[in-house]
Amino acid sequence: MSKARIERVLKAMKDAELSQLLISDPMSIYYLTGYYNEPGERFFALYLNESKEFTIFLNELFPDFEFENIRQVRLNDTSDISEFLAKVLNSEQKIGVDKNLPARFLLPMLDKHLASGFVNGSSLVDNVRAIKDVDEQEKMRAVSAINDQAMVAFKKLIVPGVTEKSVANQILSIYLELGADDISFTPIVAFGKNAADPHHFPDDTVLKPGDCVLFDVGCQKEMYCSDMTRTFFYKFVSDAHRRVYETVKAANQAAIDVIKAGVALNVIDQTARQLITEAGFGQYFTHRLGHFIGLDVHEYGDVSSSNTALTESWMIFSIEPGIYLPEDVGVRIEDLLLVTDNGSINLNSGYSKELEIIE
Amino acid sequence: MSKARIERVLKAMKDAELSQLLISDPMSIYYLTGYYNEPGERFFALYLNESKEFTIFLNELFPDFEFENIRQVRLNDTSDISEFLAKVLNSEQKIGVDKNLPARFLLPMLDKHLASGFVNGSSLVDNVRAIKDVDEQEKMRAVSAINDQAMVAFKKLIVPGVTEKSVANQILSIYLELGADDISFTPIVAFGKNAADPHHFPDDTVLKPGDCVLFDVGCQKEMYCSDMTRTFFYKFVSDAHRRVYETVKAANQAAIDVIKAGVALNVIDQTARQLITEAGFGQYFTHRLGHFIGLDVHEYGDVSSSNTALTESWMIFSIEPGIYLPEDVGVRIEDLLLVTDNGSINLNSGYSKELEIIE
Repeated sequence: MSKARIERVLKAMKDAELSQLLISDPMSIYYLTGYYNEPGERFFALYLNESKEFTIFLNELFPDFEFENIRQVRLNDTSDISEFLAKVLNSEQKIGVDKNLPARFLLPMLDKHLASGFVNGSSLVDNVRAIKDVDEQEKMRAVSAINDQAMVAFKKLIVPGVTEKSVANQILSIYLELGADDISFTPIVAFGKNAADPHHFPDDTVLKPGDCVLFDVGCQKEMYCSDMTRTFFYKFVSDAHRRVYETVKAANQAAIDVIKAGVALNVIDQTARQLITEAGFGQYFTHRLGHFIGLDVHEYGDVSSSNTALTESWMIFSIEPGIYLPEDVGVRIEDLLLVTDNGSINLNSGYSKELEIIE
Repeated sequence: MSKARIERVLKAMKDAELSQLLISDPMSIYYLTGYYNEPGERFFALYLNESKEFTIFLNELFPDFEFENIRQVRLNDTSDISEFLAKVLNSEQKIGVDKNLPARFLLPMLDKHLASGFVNGSSLVDNVRAIKDVDEQEKMRAVSAINDQAMVAFKKLIVPGVTEKSVANQILSIYLELGADDISFTPIVAFGKNAADPHHFPDDTVLKPGDCVLFDVGCQKEMYCSDMTRTFFYKFVSDAHRRVYETVKAANQAAIDVIKAGVALNVIDQTARQLITEAGFGQYFTHRLGHFIGLDVHEYGDVSSSNTALTESWMIFSIEPGIYLPEDVGVRIEDLLLVTDNGSINLNSGYSKELEIIE
């Protein structure tokens, strides 16, 4: 159990006047207890309350673990979960539940009035997770350094005749050779006009001269996730595409340049968006500028036009402007940034953002 | 859109006296519309009602698709989702929501009284999905045939000095070579006493003579999932371990022998469990006998001591008894079975269940 992290959550609960919290995000449970499990469809939750009577609910099939100061309640596949919860929850107090708590668990809790009210309490944990402690910062640096190195290898996969899929299928083994434990998400490899779809799945499209080659990739090590995007060109780049590239690169840098503790996240988004809009591509930057990251590749919190929250030191998020011209080209450049009091540290400074043409 | 499948769901809604249903399981949406998308944290749902005014809610970033007879409502990352839902849902009627609808979407729907009541309506779709149509049966046969072939290749990976991880890391590429699109879940490769944990993650354990070698593996093709388990022994098998193996094998076969349309699922579980109990291993068979499978590797429905539902023709589920002796050995044998009027078809009949010793 990480006492310091749990104390930060209890403090957040107190500030929010919430006396009890049911945490069911496996990564949040790992973050607070050191115990990781993928529960699948099974119930798995950590209950915290202001009296510090902590309880973890877990299936008897899950691996054993010595929990410090946390009572274990073991369930099996035929247990009536709300019956077990009823013995622990305070039905006269409001409870915070996880943003992702599935309806199949939440609806019976409501029907049986296991608490006096139900609210989304995830932000109490998520805002704590957003500020990375020293151990987490080290892990995020290490896993991002692997990503920088891996990009060198990925670029070498771009040879005549390859398809997006044939390239994508080699990504995992490159990460494993570099010491990663796994990929952190299904890699995006997109050639030419396919890159204009920001969520394109690699397919059998064959590389051809003049294509942009977009890699949006990440790996996992010691549970922490990296995520970066680089866009190359194959054989040559048209003047129009070069202009798209340089606009995205400038937007990425402009956003990074305004990052420091105390800046509103929407201001960072706006900085990149304005630059792209002034270049005439505003309508083709169709997504938010970035997302938080750590144990999960997408954590709570984003860098978007609607998020007026202020940055704090030791937050980590992506900066990933893109321009997507339908049926033509897509360019995205993404780094992870660690916020500091006076600026930020780019976790992907190990791989250049200059336009590269692959011969 | 699959008209036949949607009609089956509407019929189930009528039987359940539910006039509206909000389906947010991406695989269920794919099953009913042919449109697949991984929404991540974004909202994605298909609304069905008895008046057949169908609506799909999807983010503007998701790929385009021609939906037949389904109105599209495009959201963006800053949309107030419950505002959009309010325009479509009938607030004077009860609504069925998905078992996995996250609390962050469900709680605002409750707070704003978007329906007169909220129930878990997943089974209305899941029970339809459980009965595979002809196209699905063909896909399940094909993907299971790949799994049978792959097991031959996996067995060949068992050579002196290998670790669980080094074996597991080769599984994806073998599947891809055999024509699969992906793995259907993280492969379980467990040596010796590690196999006594039914959910062991492959680690750096090195193979040694006398170890059992358990593969619980599956692949995906054309969206359908396979799943099978075989347990080998390396160099030799002790008499005690042979007895464990033969007990599991007999339990697997006994359960399969009772399958046909109209049998209670708990009776199938009981058949295997009783045989294992009579052999003295009852307490070491710690999980349900099987689970349903199709587009998802674990679908709604299971073969367990508490499920008294009756089988119907064209259901597909796993039969996977196991015996787990802590710190000693774990044996599990798993096949997928397609229920027919008079019996069942074993989708994994292509790989033997006789005890095999790897030299």
